Amino acid sequence: MISFKNDYSEGAHNIILERILKENNIQNIGYGEDEHCQRAAECIKKQLNCFDCDVHFLVGGTQTNLVTISHCLKPYQAVIAADTGHINVHETGAIEATGHKVFAMPCEEGKLTVESIQKALDTHTDEHMVQPKMVYISNPTEVGTLYTKKELEELSAFCKQHHFIFYLDGARMASALASEYNDVSISDYSNLVDLLYLGGTKCGALFGEALVIFKKQLNEDFRFSIKQKGAMLAKGWILGIQFEALFEGDLYQKTGEHANIMAEKIKNAIIEKGYGFQFTPCSNQLFPILPDDILQKLEKEFIFTFWEKVDDSHTAIRIVTSWATKEENVQKLIQSIQQA
Amino acid sequence: MISFKNDYSEGAHNIILERILKENNIQNIGYGEDEHCQRAAECIKKQLNCFDCDVHFLVGGTQTNLVTISHCLKPYQAVIAADTGHINVHETGAIEATGHKVFAMPCEEGKLTVESIQKALDTHTDEHMVQPKMVYISNPTEVGTLYTKKELEELSAFCKQHHFIFYLDGARMASALASEYNDVSISDYSNLVDLLYLGGTKCGALFGEALVIFKKQLNEDFRFSIKQKGAMLAKGWILGIQFEALFEGDLYQKTGEHANIMAEKIKNAIIEKGYGFQFTPCSNQLFPILPDDILQKLEKEFIFTFWEKVDDSHTAIRIVTSWATKEENVQKLIQSIQQA
Amino acid sequence: MISFKNDYSEGAHNIILERILKENNIQNIGYGEDEHCQRAAECIKKQLNCFDCDVHFLVGGTQTNLVTISHCLKPYQAVIAADTGHINVHETGAIEATGHKVFAMPCEEGKLTVESIQKALDTHTDEHMVQPKMVYISNPTEVGTLYTKKELEELSAFCKQHHFIFYLDGARMASALASEYNDVSISDYSNLVDLLYLGGTKCGALFGEALVIFKKQLNEDFRFSIKQKGAMLAKGWILGIQFEALFEGDLYQKTGEHANIMAEKIKNAIIEKGYGFQFTPCSNQLFPILPDDILQKLEKEFIFTFWEKVDDSHTAIRIVTSWATKEENVQKLIQSIQQA
Amino acid sequence: MISFKNDYSEGAHNIILERILKENNIQNIGYGEDEHCQRAAECIKKQLNCFDCDVHFLVGGTQTNLVTISHCLKPYQAVIAADTGHINVHETGAIEATGHKVFAMPCEEGKLTVESIQKALDTHTDEHMVQPKMVYISNPTEVGTLYTKKELEELSAFCKQHHFIFYLDGARMASALASEYNDVSISDYSNLVDLLYLGGTKCGALFGEALVIFKKQLNEDFRFSIKQKGAMLAKGWILGIQFEALFEGDLYQKTGEHANIMAEKIKNAIIEKGYGFQFTPCSNQLFPILPDDILQKLEKEFIFTFWEKVDDSHTAIRIVTSWATKEENVQKLIQSIQQA
Repeated sequence: MISFKNDYSEGAHNIILERILKENNIQNIGYGEDEHCQRAAECIKKQLNCFDCDVHFLVGGTQTNLVTISHCLKPYQAVIAADTGHINVHETGAIEATGHKVFAMPCEEGKLTVESIQKALDTHTDEHMVQPKMVYISNPTEVGTLYTKKELEELSAFCKQHHFIFYLDGARMASALASEYNDVSISDYSNLVDLLYLGGTKCGALFGEALVIFKKQLNEDFRFSIKQKGAMLAKGWILGIQFEALFEGDLYQKTGEHANIMAEKIKNAIIEKGYGFQFTPCSNQLFPILPDDILQKLEKEFIFTFWEKVDDSHTAIRIVTSWATKEENVQKLIQSIQQA
Repeated sequence: MISFKNDYSEGAHNIILERILKENNIQNIGYGEDEHCQRAAECIKKQLNCFDCDVHFLVGGTQTNLVTISHCLKPYQAVIAADTGHINVHETGAIEATGHKVFAMPCEEGKLTVESIQKALDTHTDEHMVQPKMVYISNPTEVGTLYTKKELEELSAFCKQHHFIFYLDGARMASALASEYNDVSISDYSNLVDLLYLGGTKCGALFGEALVIFKKQLNEDFRFSIKQKGAMLAKGWILGIQFEALFEGDLYQKTGEHANIMAEKIKNAIIEKGYGFQFTPCSNQLFPILPDDILQKLEKEFIFTFWEKVDDSHTAIRIVTSWATKEENVQKLIQSIQQA
Repeated sequence: MISFKNDYSEGAHNIILERILKENNIQNIGYGEDEHCQRAAECIKKQLNCFDCDVHFLVGGTQTNLVTISHCLKPYQAVIAADTGHINVHETGAIEATGHKVFAMPCEEGKLTVESIQKALDTHTDEHMVQPKMVYISNPTEVGTLYTKKELEELSAFCKQHHFIFYLDGARMASALASEYNDVSISDYSNLVDLLYLGGTKCGALFGEALVIFKKQLNEDFRFSIKQKGAMLAKGWILGIQFEALFEGDLYQKTGEHANIMAEKIKNAIIEKGYGFQFTPCSNQLFPILPDDILQKLEKEFIFTFWEKVDDSHTAIRIVTSWATKEENVQKLIQSIQQA
Repeated sequence: MISFKNDYSEGAHNIILERILKENNIQNIGYGEDEHCQRAAECIKKQLNCFDCDVHFLVGGTQTNLVTISHCLKPYQAVIAADTGHINVHETGAIEATGHKVFAMPCEEGKLTVESIQKALDTHTDEHMVQPKMVYISNPTEVGTLYTKKELEELSAFCKQHHFIFYLDGARMASALASEYNDVSISDYSNLVDLLYLGGTKCGALFGEALVIFKKQLNEDFRFSIKQKGAMLAKGWILGIQFEALFEGDLYQKTGEHANIMAEKIKNAIIEKGYGFQFTPCSNQLFPILPDDILQKLEKEFIFTFWEKVDDSHTAIRIVTSWATKEENVQKLIQSIQQA
């Protein structure tokens, strides 16, 4: 079976593994206070074209979200998210477990809008309700779509106006940055958001996520929160090495490019066969709507994620590509689609 | 500088790294539901000589403790620990952050006794106080000492009698198992404790900890707690591969042996020079009490952890060896001690 | 100004105050272990026609909800509620602050249905999502409507089938019990729900709520949770005295009756003038939709709660009556409505 | 049986009850935004001789502590307390349940000292440990002793120097203020502490505690925390009325005086008989050490709290007086002591 189930079915990009191997017997200081983490942070700051920010390295996505959100909010403050947002659905209540309400708004194409945030605000008027204080978005979204620069600027302006903390979960940021549909460059983000999470696990690393804090006051004592939530890796330099490799050149961009090219090929084959998509295909996640009989044939060779029954005879599925997706497997899938 | 600061200054044992490399391009199911995790669990069960238990793989130590303790306790229940216990001191309040009091008892040589637990119990009589429900110990302890089988049996009997959950943090269990001062075999633990954490990070793995749950009812929905606390690694098989390597043969034992042999050599050199120890040296952590002038000389070449001022002219330090400690570095330290 | 803003604008029913006065100089045991609490519990059990249950007395509504829900759920479990549910909207994230997600479902007339709970269940399939474990409803609902016996039976059967804990918040239960639209008697509840909260604050008491636990295992150590959440009143007998007064005869019923009769008169006046209601009027809360110019006139003499703009020229408001509402004030309101 | 078990065995001072009665049928705004709360706050400010502070009214002591501490601390911050401190022992882990470690220091006479706080600080050096941020003391202490003005000034200076929040729990403040051993006037406190809790429950009120926040920034959004923790009384004016009565004249002082006078008489009888005390008697709590045979006789007529076995034949007990203690009961106790 060939899996298009997700973008974390393989290990790490070879360049990254080689670096880990090379460093293996060298002694490093623990807990992320080593030289690799420092250099990785500098590489990231350079790509962000922002040097007055702080970078922390964590292990996983849910962890990054819960450490960040619980660190920034006071007990009675809430985070606003799209109802499809990862923190609202797929983190087993991790944010609530730290005491905070996720106020989820219905959305289209997985995106929050200024209007939906305003609507959330309108219903929170006094101390009998939680106090919305943070806006959480994902880019790419959980349904593979991308925010335009204009959309991000509007959200950013709204957040500034209302003294909201604006947090962007970029678990799959490499795919966003490399997308032909994307008009936001990595150096734009420092002007747009307060906190930026640049994903590693789904973008070529063995594991690991980088969190960039642009707003100084949010960085105060952040390492206490990392440690308290069990997120401080003893051998932190393993994270540093990986992000050094990803960001000292264009490797991060490259991992996204490969994933996108693979997705684009599959997308075109689906379109040629006349099938549609539940969400606009823009990045490494595709949500085609397929006839159930076709799907049954494909499932004999390929693994996807079931998404939703669309009607009596059609189903939306999720197909994901990654830095590790093999061209030959994509060709096999395309052939199967064509012949189905 | 040569570091004896801790046992997580280097990467992973070569055998482990090679396995990760070999598996790198193979697709695996995510979140620990892969074949490696399954096989690793079987290897561990075999060494424990207990097949009716459950094994989970987590990333780090504080994480393992907070996931486990918060999963097992009701909101008003507390965990009793030695005042030197890792959860009481060095986890930034991670257990309290999940809502539970750590009731810390003064102790000798880092060990809890039945008497001290009884004393804790005596002061908790009704609903105006927390309800002690779990006993947490570390073996080896945070000060390098070992529980004897008799001590563990007494604690175990007491816990059973009082319906306490007995949890053993074995972050450095390889060193305990391989110690010449140890009389507890790995297959004894299933009869002694309810929950056993077998450390990887400090015992040859790149990272990772194994948690064994002997009591069925404590395992119910445990994966929900892993996920909620941000502790479910997407590429879980990387943990599986490592624990397969450690436990399918005697590698775990071997990593402990090497660490202990290195420590023993340093210990003997210290004794020969006539210096004492703050805690009885039994495993890979040594706490020699050195004259300050000697210490100042050693610190020019070697890194230790400062432990405590003992008197005006003497200081206790912590020296740690590991699976990665090089014989030549140990010889350099011994020479420096001899010549100091 | 005359207030119809809520049902807690006045103190306590005279009978209750007299009892408190009478007992004032008598020494009582603290923390709810006194004879009044015991007798009050017996009176409630008798009215419930259920003697194998436990009764606790707490101070306020949000407090009762947070103590109860946090006591019953494991860290990763969630409570399903109507999106208008008090715990979802008006408790400043009190439930989330104890670590639990409130999974809110859109609803009509403020009522949860089996269909909506099933929909919530369908989207929660594994450990990557919270585990729904409790169903929370209010009766009367937050919008003044009532569940029919048939609706409660359906919900109850569904909860039993899915091993859900079924919790009913009856902050205004007196009004429900006394409503002519109600077909559920107080003695039905022991067969319908697992936990029943009988409100005092809004039903004649100075303050205080009674929580009835029908399911034995949910009662285990409940007093630890009461104490831990700051909800154990030192002079607990003041709660006992009040609930004794309310439940030893028909005072609870009577307070509801008076509130409902007052509401019915206002309702009829509104209907006569040809105005409609946003929610079916059944109890002591009315949600008339009034022309804005009429509303402006009324607001000069009366205090209501603004509910929602319905269209450009109409607004829904909330009018609440209580055990303390004076007939003469109701007549003044009716006159003003008639003349407006 | 006559109870000297605690100072909350009776209801409320007559003056207070009369006020509640008088106001009973008047409509008030809910949730503490009424005129009584406002006037009560003004009376308290006047007695404090500090007008630039904020006053909130809560229901109980554990509640006041948990709302206050959880509001002021960031997730990784801890509160330092005497090991006899109410928050450390008798609140069922209420503070830990909000996520914060109580770092308890051994103490004499129930009092924290600068030295013990410094010792706590010395062991908390980085992000691997909690960050001490608040100092909690009780005055009178849980063992009936009083801080001198000099002791409070030293603690206050230390807290300012280390940017600690200094919180004083005055659950029994009336007794402290009225004590002949006391040299701290109520108007001194604004210069000494950041947060002052003036107890009502144990000082003449039916129930209720006042929290004074001297530090503006700690008051921000405080009402959100009150509501979230279930501590916002719907009929808040009942709290306002009581504190108006207590603080508009000298009633608060008077309730303390009566309690102290009653205690003094008992104390003198005990001394005359040649018995000692476990803690210096200064306020309305006495901890005499009595021969066990004497104690057995007394227990036939009087209720005390067992405190501690002192030796084979002596036991320390706790005797508490209050505003409600009857002179005749004190005389009976004295006679029994004399005749025993």
